[in-house]
Amino acid sequence: MNRSDVETWYRRFQAAVVGGIESVDETAMFVSDVWERDGGGGGDTRVLSEGRHIEKAAVNFSAVFGDTPEGSSERMAAVGKRFYATGVSIIVHPRNPHTPTFHANLRYFESESGPSWFGGGADLTPCYLYDEDAQHFHRTQRTVCDRHEVADYEAWKRACDEYFYLPHRREARGIGGLFFDHLTERLDEVWSFQRDLGEHLLPAYGSILRRRIATPYGDAERHWQEIRRGRYVEFNLVWDRGTKFGLDTGGRTESILGSLPPRARWEYGHTPKLGSPEARLLSLLQAEPRRWA
Amino acid sequence: MNRSDVETWYRRFQAAVVGGIESVDETAMFVSDVWERDGGGGGDTRVLSEGRHIEKAAVNFSAVFGDTPEGSSERMAAVGKRFYATGVSIIVHPRNPHTPTFHANLRYFESESGPSWFGGGADLTPCYLYDEDAQHFHRTQRTVCDRHEVADYEAWKRACDEYFYLPHRREARGIGGLFFDHLTERLDEVWSFQRDLGEHLLPAYGSILRRRIATPYGDAERHWQEIRRGRYVEFNLVWDRGTKFGLDTGGRTESILGSLPPRARWEYGHTPKLGSPEARLLSLLQAEPRRWA
Repeated sequence: MNRSDVETWYRRFQAAVVGGIESVDETAMFVSDVWERDGGGGGDTRVLSEGRHIEKAAVNFSAVFGDTPEGSSERMAAVGKRFYATGVSIIVHPRNPHTPTFHANLRYFESESGPSWFGGGADLTPCYLYDEDAQHFHRTQRTVCDRHEVADYEAWKRACDEYFYLPHRREARGIGGLFFDHLTERLDEVWSFQRDLGEHLLPAYGSILRRRIATPYGDAERHWQEIRRGRYVEFNLVWDRGTKFGLDTGGRTESILGSLPPRARWEYGHTPKLGSPEARLLSLLQAEPRRWA
Repeated sequence: MNRSDVETWYRRFQAAVVGGIESVDETAMFVSDVWERDGGGGGDTRVLSEGRHIEKAAVNFSAVFGDTPEGSSERMAAVGKRFYATGVSIIVHPRNPHTPTFHANLRYFESESGPSWFGGGADLTPCYLYDEDAQHFHRTQRTVCDRHEVADYEAWKRACDEYFYLPHRREARGIGGLFFDHLTERLDEVWSFQRDLGEHLLPAYGSILRRRIATPYGDAERHWQEIRRGRYVEFNLVWDRGTKFGLDTGGRTESILGSLPPRARWEYGHTPKLGSPEARLLSLLQAEPRRWA
């Protein structure tokens, strides 16, 4: 593999994801916003708003290059050295509170100052817990991992649980998934794994969406969804390293914050009723991460 | 002055602010949540929700003491040394988009490892710009400052503009106010200034509220208000040092995040219409801070 293979596949992957989400929504269409980066490269941010089933979604492709900026997460020795980074990130906030929010990204990085690497992952953030949805999502990822010697479901599932955690709430963001980073070895095999993962992510999420999309809901469920979306905002703005790095180093704000939910709500000391489905989700998020596959 | 004078006055100030906000709202009442801190001390968080005119307000009093935690904003030499901190913070999110959000805090700090100090400030965040409101707010603060040799309106107005700024948006949070910190000298005079400021803050804000509270508005104005509240969330979660410090060091999350607006909205690339009142506010926030008094 080389960077041009990766870039080409990422672009095609973006188009496939966009098409897949549009077909679930049935009515709304993504709008494309092609942008250039001052220091080199650019991207294509595709956004869907106020669809029938999908309230907000963003599928970003970018391929940027230039000199490693100060304050970046790379080690000091890299500052000033040339880098190249390409990736696709996906965020889907569906309307029905019974359908979970989906997040994924795949990325590839090259630098003059060190080895090239792949990173990425995918995770699910429900407002209501359906065990079979969490199992289906995790089983899909385990199955993909099991096909590739370079993949480690157990370790990457744990890394995902550790990463998507809100210390100030003592809550997990959601039911996790996979998180892997700085994979510098056997790049051809990792690349093959990454494509396999990419191809199976959206079908797995799509089947969960379709299963729940007609579940009835009312104001109370939407209210809870907005509270949970508040937590999503807290994670992304307070703890997410990518967001922080992007905003600190003058990244493209609209693309970075495209992951934020359409609407969020904060109420002082909000506590769901004992024994309610809302309380059930909360106690799961506050407990030790569960084994789903 | 001594810490007991400060604490007593802060508690009375909290009660006065709560009463003042209730009288503007006419219907809603604050709920009091008294809490204790594990390491020493505690507080009284008072919250109003879903009032007629005030959508959400929080007036927190706290007086905490103990050993300075690692990772605090104090210099390393202070870690492990005893500290005492008391303060009142106020945040008011009114319902009518023509009325501005108000934030203020007054605080006092003692430490074994250095001199005692006062800090505080007050600022206004409108969704629609009324020059006379901004002038009234700033003139009140200038007048108070002019009565006290230890106060410096010009410097503290500038400090406020610098502090409440969103670099990733290249926008000010609002029309500013005062911001002062670590005032270690002539403490009796600073204390006298702080009380004078406290006593004039709420009347100034109250008169702005009453002037705008009956201005008609519809869904479009509420929509814009939610977009602006999204910016408020971005500032507090990404840039505010107090919030970051509190969440990092295991502060009381519900009290810290009590400042967040009731609801916020994010839309990709939202841009107000050219020549609209929304665009007028935005261009003010993106320009060099204005002189209001």
